[in-house]
Amino acid sequence: MAVGVIATLKVQEGKEKDFEAVFRDMMKAVRANEPGNKLYQVCKSRKEPATYVVMEIYDNEDALKAHSASDHFKTIGAGLGPLLAGRPDIQYLDTV
Amino acid sequence: MAVGVIATLKVQEGKEKDFEAVFRDMMKAVRANEPGNKLYQVCKSRKEPATYVVMEIYDNEDALKAHSASDHFKTIGAGLGPLLAGRPDIQYLDTV
Repeated sequence: MAVGVIATLKVQEGKEKDFEAVFRDMMKAVRANEPGNKLYQVCKSRKEPATYVVMEIYDNEDALKAHSASDHFKTIGAGLGPLLAGRPDIQYLDTV
Repeated sequence: MAVGVIATLKVQEGKEKDFEAVFRDMMKAVRANEPGNKLYQVCKSRKEPATYVVMEIYDNEDALKAHSASDHFKTIGAGLGPLLAGRPDIQYLDTV
């Protein structure tokens, strides 16, 4: 069974473009370096202003751990903190 | 720009297995018949009991419309109604 993650991130007003640039780098790094990642897609909410949702699917728990422990997650992720308007909401799921 | 959908469905307690069986048919039908669909994955929440989340990505608005108008969405979807504990929550997104 694969592992799904839905991360919801609220961004400071006016910081949307900066956030998208950082997350484009993150999507590229995940897709290039994580063979156990099957989906890593950032989306923007149509309804809630400055709100983004990341859809993620990993082959298994180990692949999710490898993501969180990766250099790119730490280095690129460090650039996200100052752009956020609060703590991300992370939802963990099991694929059916 | 592609279109993302996150649908959250609460299922009546005890109906989880029935729901998963119906949704396995739906996943199969979507993947077999919708060239404009790029992702259609049902997941079960780890935290909320009897709660499922569908991650969906379509090439564009037309592909999303084709999904909602499809025979399989109508016929298989009709089997879901009696299993749900409330109205689904549907979140529309634009991919970044």
